[in-house]
Amino acid sequence: MTDFFKYTCTHQEGKARAGTFTTPHGNIETPMFMPVGTQATVKTLTPHHLHDLGAQIILSNTYHLYLRPGSDIVAELGGLHQFMNWNKPILTDSGGFQVFSLSDTRKICENGVLFKSHIDGSSHELTPEKSIAVQEDLGADIIMAFDECAPPYDKAYNQKAMQRTHRWAERCLNAKKRSDQALFGIVQGGVFPDLREQSAKTIVNMDFPGYGIGGLSVGETKEEMNAMLEVVNEVLPQNKPRYLMGVGSPEDLIHGVLRGVDMFDCVLPTRLARHHNAMIPTGRINLKNNQFARDANPIDDVCECYTCQNFTRAYLRHLITAKESLSSTLISIHNLQFLITLMKQSRLAILDNRFQQFANEFLETYKGK
Amino acid sequence: MTDFFKYTCTHQEGKARAGTFTTPHGNIETPMFMPVGTQATVKTLTPHHLHDLGAQIILSNTYHLYLRPGSDIVAELGGLHQFMNWNKPILTDSGGFQVFSLSDTRKICENGVLFKSHIDGSSHELTPEKSIAVQEDLGADIIMAFDECAPPYDKAYNQKAMQRTHRWAERCLNAKKRSDQALFGIVQGGVFPDLREQSAKTIVNMDFPGYGIGGLSVGETKEEMNAMLEVVNEVLPQNKPRYLMGVGSPEDLIHGVLRGVDMFDCVLPTRLARHHNAMIPTGRINLKNNQFARDANPIDDVCECYTCQNFTRAYLRHLITAKESLSSTLISIHNLQFLITLMKQSRLAILDNRFQQFANEFLETYKGK
Repeated sequence: MTDFFKYTCTHQEGKARAGTFTTPHGNIETPMFMPVGTQATVKTLTPHHLHDLGAQIILSNTYHLYLRPGSDIVAELGGLHQFMNWNKPILTDSGGFQVFSLSDTRKICENGVLFKSHIDGSSHELTPEKSIAVQEDLGADIIMAFDECAPPYDKAYNQKAMQRTHRWAERCLNAKKRSDQALFGIVQGGVFPDLREQSAKTIVNMDFPGYGIGGLSVGETKEEMNAMLEVVNEVLPQNKPRYLMGVGSPEDLIHGVLRGVDMFDCVLPTRLARHHNAMIPTGRINLKNNQFARDANPIDDVCECYTCQNFTRAYLRHLITAKESLSSTLISIHNLQFLITLMKQSRLAILDNRFQQFANEFLETYKGK
Repeated sequence: MTDFFKYTCTHQEGKARAGTFTTPHGNIETPMFMPVGTQATVKTLTPHHLHDLGAQIILSNTYHLYLRPGSDIVAELGGLHQFMNWNKPILTDSGGFQVFSLSDTRKICENGVLFKSHIDGSSHELTPEKSIAVQEDLGADIIMAFDECAPPYDKAYNQKAMQRTHRWAERCLNAKKRSDQALFGIVQGGVFPDLREQSAKTIVNMDFPGYGIGGLSVGETKEEMNAMLEVVNEVLPQNKPRYLMGVGSPEDLIHGVLRGVDMFDCVLPTRLARHHNAMIPTGRINLKNNQFARDANPIDDVCECYTCQNFTRAYLRHLITAKESLSSTLISIHNLQFLITLMKQSRLAILDNRFQQFANEFLETYKGK
């Protein structure tokens, strides 16, 4: 297994990187976007759809799978790859972000987090050791350290949370047993450059095979997020992948790549799809809108996804007004392929030394939110 | 177009027939089952899924598409095949059954049916001429005559409805303009053998390219339905296809084939799927059941559908308890392939002169509802 989890930077243009990361379930070409399959399914899509739309790797959520169906059941059924029939790489998060954002009540102490299930109110504790054990049951290729994510603007809170994140990162490293999984450390520190620098240095000293940048896109401005990326990526080593967690919109991805980020994930494309919004190069369109009732065009003329190759905006609007869930499936396919293709195009542009121009053109055209 | 809409009986065993019916969008091998795509979509499935699971033809509902998005819009977008991206045969019903069963209020007169939309309460009238015009807008390969379906046990009512159905059938024939669609007549008559015989003779005299058997599976017993099939199929000509409308369960299909029926449709397989029920050779299983939480088997060991080839009962149960709509997609794929395969196997058995034995074995094993 020692040949896995090598990051090779093929080419760099400015800070932007094109590279490859090796895993037991195949190589990942970066920069790239990961569809989110929270409950061991990317909502409304089959694995066949995901292959077709070009997904290289998907993300699944430890918090959700720990609570339901239980990581013991997933392990008994051969692990997450076999359980959900996805034979390419998977990344699981640590459950940290979800216990802070989803569970009903919580108590954070040095040992871990006590929380109540958002499903049935039952009491649970997640600790660094427990998170790793659950993630080893699930069996993803990349697993994440258990961290504490603080609100972005409280410096004292962020310093405490960051220091705890560092102590928990050590405990995760010590708890880890499986050699066929890469454990990524996570950098915290809110919107404070000194904390971010300190966190990056501390985590890098622990020598992880890859690094997550956490606690961003949680309420701070885009400028603050981009500034933090610049601080952190100055410290993170060149020979390891960098993963901006929970981000994001098309423009966030481009800004991230410009600043040296390699990996992204977000529920945005599938959530937007369930709310009838499709991503196009100039922004977003709401396909429920009456203006599309007789529109014989695909969502996007130049898109090569299954949806755009086969269905009109008028048909998608009909499915939406008729409350047919196929609309969510078809728009999800399109939105995911949109972000995955955006990252493929970015990669090709980097290899060609024309990414800065590509990014400028994209950002000028795209009017997102 | 005159080469289309020929039924050829390849082989007969007892009353059971194996044949072929030609349409502008391809040949249909009978006996066969049609998935129902009420609103121009077979719920939760893409056309790609339908091709994969072996659908030869699908049914769509005139009443629903007339109200939403409107048959003018479907026509403007190239007709139903292009609208929903299905390039194989389509059958549309006349809207008759739905105005009686779905619309809020109605007034039946000789000219047609006045009704209020179940969507927004707006007033509409469907007549034989209007139904044909709408179905010509939609552009299916097979269209159905506008008929009146009566409750099964009221003889006076059934006689009146049957006679009106005959007059309306004449008006449908006269209204029809397109030569690339086959108009099927419909036999009515409730559970009364004399009415059924009279209806079949009257409709056959009008010389349609195929015949629907309507007003069954609407509250009568299985024995009564089977008795009516025997009466009607004695009259229907050997060289035309016979379509038992809105039926049904696996055992209904087998009983229908035994009595000379060629075509079936029903929402049962997709509706059951949305309620977590999967069809297997011994009956039905409810996959939400706790007993499947750790069940590493597919729904059905011998099934070759995408779902059974790739997913366990435990995974499907997880999707159901997690309220992930992919469960409906995956169980729909299985249930539809189950019924389509049942008809394919019946066809092969007829060609082999072993259908009676096949039917006996199936009916002994299957404990359905």
